[in-house]
Amino acid sequence: MKPYRDMTPEERHHEYAAVKAHYDELKALNLKLDMSRGKPGRDQLNAVSDILNVLTLEDCTSGSMDVRNYGNLAGIPEARAMWADILGCQPSEIFVGGSASLQLMYDLVAKGMDFGLLHSEKPWNKVEGRKWLCPAPGYDRHFGISESFGMEMIPVPMTAEGPDMDMVEALARDPEVKGMWCVPKYSNPDGIIYSEETIRRIASMKPAAKDFLLMWDNAYCIHEFFGDYVPFPDILSECAKYGNEDMVFEFASTSKITFPGAGVSVFACSTRNMEYQKSLLNAQIISYDKVNQLRHIRFFRDKAGLLALMKKHAAILGPKFRCVLDALDREIAPRGIAEWQRPNGGYFVSVNTMPGIAKATWQLCKEAGLTMTGAGATFPYGKDPQDSNMRVAPSLPPIEQLEKAMEIYCVSMRLAALRKLLAE
Amino acid sequence: MKPYRDMTPEERHHEYAAVKAHYDELKALNLKLDMSRGKPGRDQLNAVSDILNVLTLEDCTSGSMDVRNYGNLAGIPEARAMWADILGCQPSEIFVGGSASLQLMYDLVAKGMDFGLLHSEKPWNKVEGRKWLCPAPGYDRHFGISESFGMEMIPVPMTAEGPDMDMVEALARDPEVKGMWCVPKYSNPDGIIYSEETIRRIASMKPAAKDFLLMWDNAYCIHEFFGDYVPFPDILSECAKYGNEDMVFEFASTSKITFPGAGVSVFACSTRNMEYQKSLLNAQIISYDKVNQLRHIRFFRDKAGLLALMKKHAAILGPKFRCVLDALDREIAPRGIAEWQRPNGGYFVSVNTMPGIAKATWQLCKEAGLTMTGAGATFPYGKDPQDSNMRVAPSLPPIEQLEKAMEIYCVSMRLAALRKLLAE
Repeated sequence: MKPYRDMTPEERHHEYAAVKAHYDELKALNLKLDMSRGKPGRDQLNAVSDILNVLTLEDCTSGSMDVRNYGNLAGIPEARAMWADILGCQPSEIFVGGSASLQLMYDLVAKGMDFGLLHSEKPWNKVEGRKWLCPAPGYDRHFGISESFGMEMIPVPMTAEGPDMDMVEALARDPEVKGMWCVPKYSNPDGIIYSEETIRRIASMKPAAKDFLLMWDNAYCIHEFFGDYVPFPDILSECAKYGNEDMVFEFASTSKITFPGAGVSVFACSTRNMEYQKSLLNAQIISYDKVNQLRHIRFFRDKAGLLALMKKHAAILGPKFRCVLDALDREIAPRGIAEWQRPNGGYFVSVNTMPGIAKATWQLCKEAGLTMTGAGATFPYGKDPQDSNMRVAPSLPPIEQLEKAMEIYCVSMRLAALRKLLAE
Repeated sequence: MKPYRDMTPEERHHEYAAVKAHYDELKALNLKLDMSRGKPGRDQLNAVSDILNVLTLEDCTSGSMDVRNYGNLAGIPEARAMWADILGCQPSEIFVGGSASLQLMYDLVAKGMDFGLLHSEKPWNKVEGRKWLCPAPGYDRHFGISESFGMEMIPVPMTAEGPDMDMVEALARDPEVKGMWCVPKYSNPDGIIYSEETIRRIASMKPAAKDFLLMWDNAYCIHEFFGDYVPFPDILSECAKYGNEDMVFEFASTSKITFPGAGVSVFACSTRNMEYQKSLLNAQIISYDKVNQLRHIRFFRDKAGLLALMKKHAAILGPKFRCVLDALDREIAPRGIAEWQRPNGGYFVSVNTMPGIAKATWQLCKEAGLTMTGAGATFPYGKDPQDSNMRVAPSLPPIEQLEKAMEIYCVSMRLAALRKLLAE
């Protein structure tokens, strides 16, 4: 096998005919496969379904309050304590939300828009040229929040160590730059872990905007699928070292620990931010679902129980990621038409094809019955300047379907690459 | 016994000494009682706690989707169908939320502020003199939402049939009046049911603002405690009769059916509003807790099961309301110092004292260990022009505590009335 770039035109035509025939065979199977979103598979959900009946009537009334009734805006003390243990901060710095950390993130940005944050001179809806830093490739739903609130989104390239910090520091000198998205551990989609140096530079930033908001979405904080749990610094105390304790809000959830549709989310922030946010949230909600908070605590028991549970997920997810990487190594590497990350955790494999074929690959997959994350979706406004990045999400399909999906994906990419090279 | 107004000064002094002695005795008991909020009591929560373990793993996967996973923004079909049955609208008109209808209400007003509603010319945050109609006495948390978004709140007197509609119609001619709060059945706090004529006039309104928002908080839609379930018109079809289908959002929840801290909330609206709201909500949340939605459906089984459950609540609440009304009839009526409503459902008894003594009564209660809803809280900005309305919330205390609480309340009111009359 030769890299496609090194083939003669005749060799490419020959290869094209073979790949096209393979593609047509797959298409004729009329499959319906989905690698588009980071949805846990049914086997993962079954592995945690004891949570459904773990809570007793006695549990509800035996703690510091009756969790069934109104009250306790910031969540039950047991849940605040456990999340503090996981994230490395203080229980008083934890706010426990509902089933979606996305909602907590959206609501926080909305609070900035409507009322301003703790150090805002005015609400962001009064800042005409408001901007947001968007390390890319990144998470489309993050970008969706910024876009919906009319932020000008500025893409920042990702490196192997996290966002390009020279560029972040330069851009943050603009007082209209009001915040930045970060997925610091097993970033979506690259799967890399921000380096200590990157974290230090982020925590010590001096943005021109006094109300700059560091959105630290630690979505995959304990989500290793290869190897053991990797400890990770507490961003709140890192920021506090540099007098930036009010700059950061950290987010996490159990969406990929228990149930995506029925988990528990949290944010962590300085106690001053907590008081201010509680004063605003008090008009919005009396408390999130405290029974579900306690249900989760009874199910996990403690941090050790939680990490043991993540090993169960890893036992299911590991082979799926292995399947994806093996297929890429076998089918794509020898052709030299893409590169990819080799993450140890998170929910994605980030593939960078040769420029100009991501959309075509996506379209070919679709026509053969495989739904992939939209090409471009990992960039602000859906615009990947290289038309190259693709997010592979292997978690949902059972492994036998996944193998078929990867066959379609690799053949589609090869076909798209050959078409592009033949047209040059 | 004589009405206090009819007493001679000497009789009043005599009465004052006796009431003061009684008050001092009660105060010396150092009680800690709470009639401030519409919180269900522990006996009510215990009566529904089978819901904790009603859901099985099979339930989660046997319906139209796996409720444990991501997806279905508007909620599970079973929950949409059941709420449509309760409210009298179509399943497609129902959006199922999280544990708090307050959150759905807040978020809807926030959407109006940030993006505008379906028929808005511009977001409300660009409408400088935005105003909101607040039938009063009303619900403090409603007023809290309007106030936090900088609406000028205009109080509208409540009558025995609902808000004073002559005034509502006149005020709605102002294009800066963007909406109105309504609790149409067992209104908070008056406990009255809007009359058919009031509902017709509301549904047929022609407000100057094309984006006028009728917030129809049907919080007590099936919450009778005396007598049988009273059917109630579907406001969506009422509004549609007059071409106003996009003017109204209806809200309801199970906060006072299952658990206040862990229930399910809904809004109902026209399908056009639904599409628009979903397009906005899509940036905020993937779905609310669908497992809890299904848990509720399995627990209720059907509308008949739900109404049977409400009878259990009524069996607990009825005697508590009877206790409140009996105390008022016995201790207050003969003195002629207050009037009150006699509701058949809801969570409150609305008491109107003689002008100028509500705050003093509240303060005396507090000093004797009884927390009441703040005097004035039922009016916008906490300002009751008559200093008269007090909301009595009998649901939380067990009946023996409630009797003591009513003793303190009645004695405090008598003391406050005598002080006022003696000072005249």
